This record gives sequence, structure tokens and C-alpha cells, in this order.
Amino acid sequence: MLKKPLVGIIMGSDSDLPVMKEAAKVLEDFGIEYEMTIVSAHRTPERMFKYAKEAEERGIEVIVAGAGGAAHLPGMVASISNLPVIGVPVKTSSLNGLDSLLSIVQMPAGVPVATVAINNAKNAGILAAEILGVKYPEIRKKIAEYKERMKNEVEEKAKELEE
Amino acid sequence: MLKKPLVGIIMGSDSDLPVMKEAAKVLEDFGIEYEMTIVSAHRTPERMFKYAKEAEERGIEVIVAGAGGAAHLPGMVASISNLPVIGVPVKTSSLNGLDSLLSIVQMPAGVPVATVAINNAKNAGILAAEILGVKYPEIRKKIAEYKERMKNEVEEKAKELEE
Amino acid sequence: MLKKPLVGIIMGSDSDLPVMKEAAKVLEDFGIEYEMTIVSAHRTPERMFKYAKEAEERGIEVIVAGAGGAAHLPGMVASISNLPVIGVPVKTSSLNGLDSLLSIVQMPAGVPVATVAINNAKNAGILAAEILGVKYPEIRKKIAEYKERMKNEVEEKAKELEE
Amino acid sequence: MLKKPLVGIIMGSDSDLPVMKEAAKVLEDFGIEYEMTIVSAHRTPERMFKYAKEAEERGIEVIVAGAGGAAHLPGMVASISNLPVIGVPVKTSSLNGLDSLLSIVQMPAGVPVATVAINNAKNAGILAAEILGVKYPEIRKKIAEYKERMKNEVEEKAKELEE
Amino acid sequence: MLKKPLVGIIMGSDSDLPVMKEAAKVLEDFGIEYEMTIVSAHRTPERMFKYAKEAEERGIEVIVAGAGGAAHLPGMVASISNLPVIGVPVKTSSLNGLDSLLSIVQMPAGVPVATVAINNAKNAGILAAEILGVKYPEIRKKIAEYKERMKNEVEEKAKELEE
Amino acid sequence: MLKKPLVGIIMGSDSDLPVMKEAAKVLEDFGIEYEMTIVSAHRTPERMFKYAKEAEERGIEVIVAGAGGAAHLPGMVASISNLPVIGVPVKTSSLNGLDSLLSIVQMPAGVPVATVAINNAKNAGILAAEILGVKYPEIRKKIAEYKERMKNEVEEKAKELEE
Amino acid sequence: MLKKPLVGIIMGSDSDLPVMKEAAKVLEDFGIEYEMTIVSAHRTPERMFKYAKEAEERGIEVIVAGAGGAAHLPGMVASISNLPVIGVPVKTSSLNGLDSLLSIVQMPAGVPVATVAINNAKNAGILAAEILGVKYPEIRKKIAEYKERMKNEVEEKAKELEE
Amino acid sequence: MLKKPLVGIIMGSDSDLPVMKEAAKVLEDFGIEYEMTIVSAHRTPERMFKYAKEAEERGIEVIVAGAGGAAHLPGMVASISNLPVIGVPVKTSSLNGLDSLLSIVQMPAGVPVATVAINNAKNAGILAAEILGVKYPEIRKKIAEYKERMKNEVEEKAKELEE
Repeated sequence: MLKKPLVGIIMGSDSDLPVMKEAAKVLEDFGIEYEMTIVSAHRTPERMFKYAKEAEERGIEVIVAGAGGAAHLPGMVASISNLPVIGVPVKTSSLNGLDSLLSIVQMPAGVPVATVAINNAKNAGILAAEILGVKYPEIRKKIAEYKERMKNEVEEKAKELEE
Repeated sequence: MLKKPLVGIIMGSDSDLPVMKEAAKVLEDFGIEYEMTIVSAHRTPERMFKYAKEAEERGIEVIVAGAGGAAHLPGMVASISNLPVIGVPVKTSSLNGLDSLLSIVQMPAGVPVATVAINNAKNAGILAAEILGVKYPEIRKKIAEYKERMKNEVEEKAKELEE
Repeated sequence: MLKKPLVGIIMGSDSDLPVMKEAAKVLEDFGIEYEMTIVSAHRTPERMFKYAKEAEERGIEVIVAGAGGAAHLPGMVASISNLPVIGVPVKTSSLNGLDSLLSIVQMPAGVPVATVAINNAKNAGILAAEILGVKYPEIRKKIAEYKERMKNEVEEKAKELEE
Repeated sequence: MLKKPLVGIIMGSDSDLPVMKEAAKVLEDFGIEYEMTIVSAHRTPERMFKYAKEAEERGIEVIVAGAGGAAHLPGMVASISNLPVIGVPVKTSSLNGLDSLLSIVQMPAGVPVATVAINNAKNAGILAAEILGVKYPEIRKKIAEYKERMKNEVEEKAKELEE
Repeated sequence: MLKKPLVGIIMGSDSDLPVMKEAAKVLEDFGIEYEMTIVSAHRTPERMFKYAKEAEERGIEVIVAGAGGAAHLPGMVASISNLPVIGVPVKTSSLNGLDSLLSIVQMPAGVPVATVAINNAKNAGILAAEILGVKYPEIRKKIAEYKERMKNEVEEKAKELEE
Repeated sequence: MLKKPLVGIIMGSDSDLPVMKEAAKVLEDFGIEYEMTIVSAHRTPERMFKYAKEAEERGIEVIVAGAGGAAHLPGMVASISNLPVIGVPVKTSSLNGLDSLLSIVQMPAGVPVATVAINNAKNAGILAAEILGVKYPEIRKKIAEYKERMKNEVEEKAKELEE
Repeated sequence: MLKKPLVGIIMGSDSDLPVMKEAAKVLEDFGIEYEMTIVSAHRTPERMFKYAKEAEERGIEVIVAGAGGAAHLPGMVASISNLPVIGVPVKTSSLNGLDSLLSIVQMPAGVPVATVAINNAKNAGILAAEILGVKYPEIRKKIAEYKERMKNEVEEKAKELEE
Repeated sequence: MLKKPLVGIIMGSDSDLPVMKEAAKVLEDFGIEYEMTIVSAHRTPERMFKYAKEAEERGIEVIVAGAGGAAHLPGMVASISNLPVIGVPVKTSSLNGLDSLLSIVQMPAGVPVATVAINNAKNAGILAAEILGVKYPEIRKKIAEYKERMKNEVEEKAKELEE
């Protein structure tokens, strides 16, 4: 990871790491530089403010933010930054992530968060790549290859099942 | 409203005013000074930060915050201020306020929001009074009187129905 | 703050104890005296009545009440006492605490319960401290310190993750 | 069955009357004496206690209790009285009565409430009759006749539709 | 179990037995005769019809019916019999019994089912006893004693906790 | 309607007619004979039994059954008849048809109901046609034509919008 | 399995196999030829298109499609093919299959999916048999026998329990 | 609209137009070229395939897709195209758009849809602009200006309320 990161992966708590590292993994597979850290909207509001405020000028182009429960991190970062923000609703023990999902997706007019499925940080990574693919043709190409790989995998498994 | 306000009533949008003014009304009935303004976590994050940061030193003792949808205002203010924050989930057109409720009540450990029922800003006002009643015996007394009035009203209506 | 408890922690059943003791623990950390007992709205209605009726005169200033399912304890105590009542919805095996949450938070106008997240008795303890902080500056100060500690913990974990 | 009411119909608020009077109507149709009044668990807890405590000795044999939101009336009355208590979850404006339903039906072991459908006070009246039918053969007979009438009505409507 | 059973406990499948036997147990504690069998509305519709049709003349006075998922047994039996029918929504693996609850409680006007909490067959047994208590004073007395025992148990546990 | 009906459309109440007649309309469009009547599982259980028992020998090949709330009609008919049964969950005033949907779709193993969307009796009609299309090639052909018509309608509307 | 398959069982992922093979098993019990493979609407959209397009001409008469989460496979296949399509909502780890159920059942007017209960692929197999039974009397007969077997099993278990 | 469109706005039905035109409006405000048409996944699957397949080569850089109920359009387009796809869950009459939301957001790993709030096509437009802002600095600048305008509007309304 020598080059400047294009994607900032943040999460509200280190307990979200097992979920969120899937976003990192997929970006690595795509060869996209990223940074990953903990930024809690509730426990470190100033750190969150600073992160959201400075991400753009530090060269970050897409932010992936994961949080659970009353998940305010993605929405608050989206409100402060001009970058596209992808929200990952982290599954919770009591309401299974329905609370996280609604807290992230139901943003008021003016401040969107690009929300993916509950716990699906992998898709957040892919979506970040698709967004970067708008600008970087080589990333777009990698997405096409990734889709091809997925297709082949399914077809191989289909063959196995059919045999 | 000559004396310094003890309660700060804030809301995410002026569309929340018909709901939130019920909190103001009940505080007026109790003779408790309050201030009321619009502070949007998403559209004015810096104003929100400033409000939450300065409320305590300005003499505010309880904050009542109402918001709808991905309702981040109460939780963000609670994360920044040391004051007790009461959250009012405002009813939404699609999910009827279940989104607002979960976004406000499901706060992570460390940063509570004292959540009341959907659209029940009146109860937010009463709860603010109960909290102030811990410190001000005259407010505690007014709560007792209020409960007495409620009881009498029910009993009168019961009599009417029984007749 | 010599010996008389300021906070009364009650719960509907001894099975709620593993959840509710988190409220006690946080109050201990803050050096706030509390009492803790079992008061079932449904199995000991008279005991509940008596507890709610006498708490104020015994010097209790905030009540924390936890219950699950058709959770009536917080609301009933709030209806009888003039003290602020914090409700902790305890997670249930079938509906995961959604029943507890709605039974506690959806109180009618006139009788608020300051509801926290499902199973989040820790936040109930912190909220109790914030409410007492309105009256006791030394408790307010401890909340500020607690928030500082939380912030530092997150920042340390962030550093570890970034390394 | 001369004059003393056998069924006590109570409701948390006079706003529940349009719903609850359907229970009264069906009891009238069955010729069963009833009384109807307002008893709020939250606004008149002592009145509720007294009502539940004394209903049995006053000759009431079944209680029908309707309430909405954090609906504690049926459960609290069931906890105090030894009579069977039928709960009617009244529809609410925000959560459509799902809150009322869960607050009434999800009672803990030891204190059942015989819950009927949201807003279905008519069924509460019929259920009260079925319960009284265990003791009074003439009421049992009327239930059989009522079912016969229902059947005939459906069959007539079916004929109309088929023509 | 020499005398004629007063309560018929039926369930849709033998997999409901671990839940439903709690109803039997509480009836045994109260000394109330019962019978218990499997009657599936879906797999044995004629058996169900026959059971519901003949229960009354066989001397059954209350029916307790448990079922899960699209739980039609309680409602169908209630439609055929003139006896009060208590429904126990059995918890399901996918929707946790919310499907069972709604399938049982949301009966149309004319055919009530006295619904208890999800999996709470114990309460179904107690409710059956309360209903029989309308007719049999000795059962009413046992309910009063049961409530007293519950109260004492809570108070003992409260003492232990307070020590 | 001269020829013997192939589809039996039944509904629990005449209030379901505005919804259910859409099934009839689509069958008419396809030129498929049908019959339509009211059969209430709860208010006319014997009529329901008889209908389900005799439908097959009367020449009915598919049954479409609509019901709301604790909607037992489709499932009960499916349990008695060997014909494929299509269930239409009718929207309800309190729970918007979620209760109807779960009561119909969550059938236990052994007795399926082919469930369509809430209030979507039109789709029940189309599904009935698709099922009959397995046997009758001319109906299969009509479905293909219907799909073609739908496609053309969308494309025309698309053109209008694009202009 | 020498003859041409009448039922095509497809699933979105090989992780759905433990659920979906129950459909295969029941078809085997009924002696109905089937084929089973993996067709992902999202990862192999062209394969899905091809499968849906060609199923009819290959002699398939009913399609059973299982998928989880944003489950688009059944609906997309139903939109492309003129065959009846049975949808099996596969249980998901976060929302327990409620997402799968709504994604499958709530199809717009014009394109029905015959939806069965969450994870209930067995019922999908039985429903496929019932649909084929419209055309093939010998399959209809097997369904009648299956129902008879179910009935006997329940009655035997009932006897065991009663003893 | 002379220049080549960068954003493709598609919807499943012309009934979605009142919702979806908000996306168009916001893009117009930002001076971003777009095209808008109807593409139904269910009624015009081939048109959908073609649209998704060709959008990229036609110069579209972001797709906004709105649909209701079992909303498959956004997910299917995302599965076929390599472009970032934004999904707008359209509110439905029965389940208020919860079905649309879950059908769109709960996509399986590999195929993300950037989901916004129910009916919030405006936010879809803004998110499209934010994504394009990654590539086009002048669009990024407009987002910053838009956020500034939002802030000012709130502050003006706050002033009015405070006066």
C-alpha cells in the first residue's frame, strides 16, 4: 500500500471489524488503495467531523462507513463530506440489523447514503469500485472481469450439481 | 420569556414544528423557560455541533430533540453534550416513524437518548419537567399537580360515560 | 452522596438481572449510590405500587426499570411516581425485545418513560447519571470524564487498527 | 340475569369508546348485563387498582379491557384480579396497533390476557359470552344461535353473488 | 385422571408438545382434568372438525389449541365449537412466531380466539383455569392461591437480591 | 358462462369482492370459465368443507381463495382438496395485509398454498391460467399473448415518456 | 430418471441446496421427473434468461425457483417464461427470510409467482405435483394418497400421545 | 438536453413517474444531462436486458432505477451492467415500501445496489451527482454549493422560528 488511498473504510467500533474487513479484502482484490480506521459518530464526534471534513482533500474519493443499531456514522459523514458515502448496516443482536438498515437508508432529502445489504461490506467494496470505475477505466475493467469470474463459478457449481 | 431558558427544544426541520410545539406548550403550562429552534444534523452539521457544544454553558439543562426517518439529531447531540437529551421520533410517511424510533432509541452503549413515543413531544416536555424536578422542587410540585389534573379529567369523563 | 441511594434499579424478574446489573455497574463507576431489587408489575402489583409511591420520599431521585415482553413495569411506575423513570426493554426469546420496546416507549400523552435501547441497561445507568448531573455538578463532571475516556479508547483502538 | 352486570368493559381513554362500544353492543344482543367505564392504568392507577380489586366481589365475572399504544390496562387488571380478562388492542395512529397488540398479548408466565384482534371489541364481547356460556347454559345457547345467524347471512350473500 | 376432562388441549403437530405440555402441567397443578391430543387442521381436517364438533357434548368446557406458522387450528376449532377457545402461537424457526401470532389473534368479527403470548402455553392453562373459575368456585380459589405463591416467590427473590 | 367452470373463485366475505373480482376479470379476458362465491372458513365451516371436498368432482381444476386477517380459507381448502389452491391475502385496515399474507403463505409442510401478492387477485387469475396452461395449450398461448400485450403497453408508455 | 423432466428446480446459489433438495425429494416420492441446477439471476443473468426462455420447449411444465435476500430469481423467471413458477423464499441470516418472502411474493400485476412458506421447498414440490395433477390423473391420485398418509401419521402420533 | 446523457433514470412503471421525476429535477438543477424512460424487469425483461447491457457503451455513467413491491429492476440492471446502479424503493399501498426496500437493498454478495430511502428519488439524483463528482470536479463543486444552500435555508427558517 504505497500509493495514496482512494477509499476510506471507517466503522463505528472495532467490533464491526470482522464485517468491514470484507470491504477491504475486495478492494485489495481489485488493487484499489484504501485506508481503514475506527471513527465513532457517538464516542468520537469530533474525530468523525474531522475525518469527514478532511477526507476529500486527503485524496479519498469514496467513503465506506459501517455501523450498527442507531447507526449515525454513514449519514453524518455524508452530511459533512461532498464525497459519495456507502453505508453498511451492521447486524445487531436484538433487531438483527433492521435498526441499522433503517438508520442508514432512511436519510432525509439532500443527504443520500448509498446503502448496501445488512453486513454486506463486500458489496460496499464492490460498489466503491464501481463508483471509482466511472473515473478509472482500469477499475471498470476489473469489475467486468470480476463479474465474469462470478459467472464462471456459478456455472461450475451448476455443472457439479447437475452431474 | 424573560428568564434564561432551561430547556432547549430543537428539531431537524420546520416540518417537525406541528409535532414539536407540543413540547413547548407543556413547558409553558409548567412555567418552565425554554428556547426552540431548528438544528439539522444532516443539513447543518456545524450548527448542530455548536448547539450541542454550547448548550450547557448557556444554561440549558435538558435538550429535547425531534427528528424523523434516519433521525440522527438526538443521538448526535447526546454524543456531544453532557446534558440529558430527550429524543422524539417524528412519524414518517412511509414507515410511520418506526424508522425514526429505531434510529433514536437503539443508541450504542455510552451515549443514551431518553426516547419517548412516536410523535409524543408532549411527553418529551413532561419528561424534561420531571428531570428538572430532580433539581427544582417547585417543578416537581407542578408535576404532581399535573398528574392530579389528569386523574380528575379521566374520572369526570368516566362519570359522563357511566351516566 | 454519603449512603442514601439516589437511583432505584428495579426489574420485573430475577432473569433480568444479567442485563440490569450493567446499570448498577455504571452507577458504581460514577460513585452514585443506588438500590436494586425485583418488583414485578404483574406478579407483585401491590409491591410495585408501594415502591413507586414511596420512592420519592425515601430519597430516590431517578428510577431505572427493566422488563421484557408486555413490559408494564416502567410505565406503571412512571404513572404512580413523580420521578423521572428510565425504561430498559429486555430482549425476549421470541420477538427479540421489539415487544418490550414498544410496550415501554409507546406511552400515552401524560406519562413519559425515558426509554433506552433493547438490553442497554448500561445506557440507563448513564442516563440516570446525566439526569442527576442536572442537580449535582460533581456527577456532571464525571460524565464529561467518562466521555473523554470513551473517546480515548476509540482513538487507541483506531491507532491499533491503522498500524 | 336481572340487573347486576356480569361483564365489566373498561377502556384507557374516552377516545377508545367508538371501538369499545362494539363489545357492549354484542353483549346487549346476547342479553348479558354489563357495565362500561373509563379506567386508565396510567392516568388513574389507583382507580385501576380499585376497579380490578373489587370487580370480583361486585359480581363481575369477566372483564373486557381495551387500550392502545403501550397498552397496560388489560395486563395490570389481569395481574390484580382473579377474573378472566379479555384484552382489546386499540389501533394507534403511528404503529397501527401493533404496539397495542404486543403490549397486551405478550404477557409473562403467570398472568394471561385473552387477547383478541386489533380493534375487534365485538369479538371481545363474543368471547365474554362464550366464557359466561361455560356457566350459563342460556348464554351458550345464544352463541349457537348467533353462529347460525352468521352462517345464514353468509349463505344469503353467497346466493346473491352467485345469481 | 379418573374424572371427565374439562379442558381439551390440542396441538397441530407432535413437535408442539414441548411447548404445549406446559398447559397440561399447570392444569395438573390446579387439579383440573384435561385431555391432550394431536389434531392437525391441515393434515387431519376431518379429525379437527369432529373434535371441535363433539368437544362440547363430551363435557369439555374450554379448548386450548396450539399451532405454529399459518396456524389455523385455534381459529377453525373456534369457528366450529361454541366453547371458548384459547390459542397458543407456537414459535417458528423463520419468523419467530410472529406468523403464528397474527394467524391466531387476527380473527374476523364473529369468531374470537383468546390468544396468549408466543409459546406461553402455561398462560393458556392459567387462562383456562380462570375461565373455569367463573363456574367453579374451588378453581377460582386456586387461582387466588397461585397468585399468592407467585407474589411470595418474587418477594423471596427480591430479598435475596437485596441482601 | 355456458361451459363447466374450471376455476373456483371463493372469498371469506363479500367485502373481499372488490379485490377478488379482478381474478374473475382476468379469467374472462382469457376466456376461462369460472364460478365465484362466498365461502367463509370461520362463519360457514361446513360450507367450506363441502366446497373443498366437492370442487374436484364438479370439474373445478384450480381454486382461487381470498381472505384477510387470520386468513384460514385458502389453507383449509388446500388441506381438504387435492387441487392446486391459490391464496390472495386481502389487505386489512390495521396491519395492511401482513397478517393475511403470513396466515396464507406460512403453511406447514404437506399443504402448500400458492400465494400471490397482497390484494393482487389479478395475479391469482393469471396464475390460475398458467396452471391450466399446463394442460390446455390454447390457454398457454393466451398467456404468451398477454405477456406480449403487457410488453407493448410498457414500450408505448416508454415512448410517450421519452418524447 | 430416464424420462424427460417435467419440473425444473433451480436455485440462486449452491448454499440453497440443503433447502431446495426437499423439493426434489418429494418429487421423487411422487415419481415425477425433475432436473435441478443452479441459476443465479444476479451472477448469471444470461444463463437465467436462457433457462427461463427454453424451459417450456424443453418440456418442463412447472418451475420451482428458490432464492434468498433480494430474491429475484423466481420473479425474473416468471417474467420470461409462460410456465407456472413456484417461488421458495430461502431463510436469510439477518432478516430470517422476510426479505426473501417479500421479494418473491409481492410481484406486480401481470407476473405472478406462486409463493410458498419460507424454506418450505417440500411444499414447492407438492404444489408442483398438484399443478401437474391438473393434467396427469396419476399424479392427482398420488397426492390423494400422500394426504391419506399424512393423516394416518398424525392419527398414529395422536394415539401415542393419548396413551 | 443537447449533450449526451450521463445518468439513465429508469422506472418499472409510469405510475412511478411522480416519484422518479424528483431525480430528474435535481440533475437538471446540477446541470447534469440525463435520460429517463420506463423499463420493466417483469413486463419487458428483454428491454431491461438490452438497456442494462448497452447503457455503458452509450455513455451512461450512472443508472438510477426506481421500482416498487418485489422490486427487481435495480438489482437486475446491476447484475447485467458494470455501472454503479442507484435503487429507489417506491412506496407501495400495502406494505408502504418496506417490500420495495428489502427487495432492492438486500442484494447478495457480488452485485451491490446503492439504495436510498423509500420514495427519495431526489437523493438518488444527488447521489448520482456525488458519484459523477468523483470524475467531474465541476459537479463536485455544485454539490458543495448545494450543501451550502441547504444550510442557509435551514438557518433562515431557524431565524424565523426563533423570532
